[in-house]
Amino acid sequence: MTYCHAIKVKDGLVFASDSRTNAGVDHVNTYSKMHTFLVAGERLFVLLSAGNLATTQAVVNAIRRDLLAGDGRENLNSVKYLFDAADYVGKLSTDIQREYRARAFGHDFNPEASFILGGQISGQEPELFLIYPQGNYIATSDTTPYLQIGETKYGKPILDRVIEVDTSLEDAARCALVSLDSTVRSNVSVGPPFELAIYRRDTLQIDHHLELMPNKALFAELKHSWNDGLRRAFDDLPRFDWEQ
Amino acid sequence: MTYCHAIKVKDGLVFASDSRTNAGVDHVNTYSKMHTFLVAGERLFVLLSAGNLATTQAVVNAIRRDLLAGDGRENLNSVKYLFDAADYVGKLSTDIQREYRARAFGHDFNPEASFILGGQISGQEPELFLIYPQGNYIATSDTTPYLQIGETKYGKPILDRVIEVDTSLEDAARCALVSLDSTVRSNVSVGPPFELAIYRRDTLQIDHHLELMPNKALFAELKHSWNDGLRRAFDDLPRFDWEQ
Repeated sequence: MTYCHAIKVKDGLVFASDSRTNAGVDHVNTYSKMHTFLVAGERLFVLLSAGNLATTQAVVNAIRRDLLAGDGRENLNSVKYLFDAADYVGKLSTDIQREYRARAFGHDFNPEASFILGGQISGQEPELFLIYPQGNYIATSDTTPYLQIGETKYGKPILDRVIEVDTSLEDAARCALVSLDSTVRSNVSVGPPFELAIYRRDTLQIDHHLELMPNKALFAELKHSWNDGLRRAFDDLPRFDWEQ
Repeated sequence: MTYCHAIKVKDGLVFASDSRTNAGVDHVNTYSKMHTFLVAGERLFVLLSAGNLATTQAVVNAIRRDLLAGDGRENLNSVKYLFDAADYVGKLSTDIQREYRARAFGHDFNPEASFILGGQISGQEPELFLIYPQGNYIATSDTTPYLQIGETKYGKPILDRVIEVDTSLEDAARCALVSLDSTVRSNVSVGPPFELAIYRRDTLQIDHHLELMPNKALFAELKHSWNDGLRRAFDDLPRFDWEQ
């Protein structure tokens, strides 16, 4: 499994991902699920991936192939809008899934994959899209300023409580780390290292990219601080009538 | 959907349930999912239910029917141990599911149901069991002192952080309410009123039974206090290097 999510606030975008992949308990591996595609000063895309690892790798390879082809085909540099980019990735994904389904034997083979694609094209607004396994996609809105793929439920409550359009970019990034921490505690199929990318709007480059281990430096501090803070919040809860 | 859970600590048991039932968005109703069966001074059972409402109601009806039959058949008063009671409920559930499957047309009919059964038989330890749709069941342990059925993921992180065998009964009950609150915020298929039952070991009667609405009295206070506490915990998180 996987847990990736991205947040859009007024100052920019935050992307967060774990890096555990598994196909049954015997095939647990570590792969980055965050891929960046950049034309300096012109456009920036960050792609987060979840689902069948062969499909997600094939999609990333196809994106790179199309960028290098130089034969006028559609690619991340040729698309005019971010939703065109989402549409392009959706088509790649379903084409690859169709191909793998045609190759496979049996009915329990599942090549499905989901993606979050975000970024900015010069002169346009930063945007985020969730691309479904079916190849269609949705954007964020002011009332739903984040998108999640993979094992989404454990980390959702804190996003629902904290994230608003006016949340600062750094607070959104901290919230993303708390959301990852909550997921990791309750689900073994999501694991470190974690990647965090912070994009400040109109800069067209990643402001900060962090790779974090749960028991080291910032993430360890944040985890302990959050745990202590939750404990205090819990201890401060009102008593029942029958308690003093 | 549904969210029910129960917690076993050294001082007793806590049971919590929502009361929303739905079969598609057009059939949203309110039903209690907490059922108590008591022989004063001798034994107490609390049953929480999730899944197909016709199945869970039929199971509760069958339990009542068997208690009244008076013909020597197995029932909640005749079972010797709590695991016998779990086994009995598991058999009722699968018998009813089998019957309903035999009646139904088509393949997408799903009569599955899950239960949490807990309580105490005089002279024995309090216990909790989760009864799967397949009729088999598991108990809590010192390392896993709680059980959940229904929409379990949103409310799990707080249970994982707070609940230990030594947690006080009241803290366990507060944690149950926070777990419900987290679920309700993130999932519309779980809804009020909420029921909370607190059982103090060896009393063989429910110590406190509360029916709670999210915007009233205790639950509203607890919700606001928890939200403020989380907000403080969040504001206290360590800053990134590049912030002052």
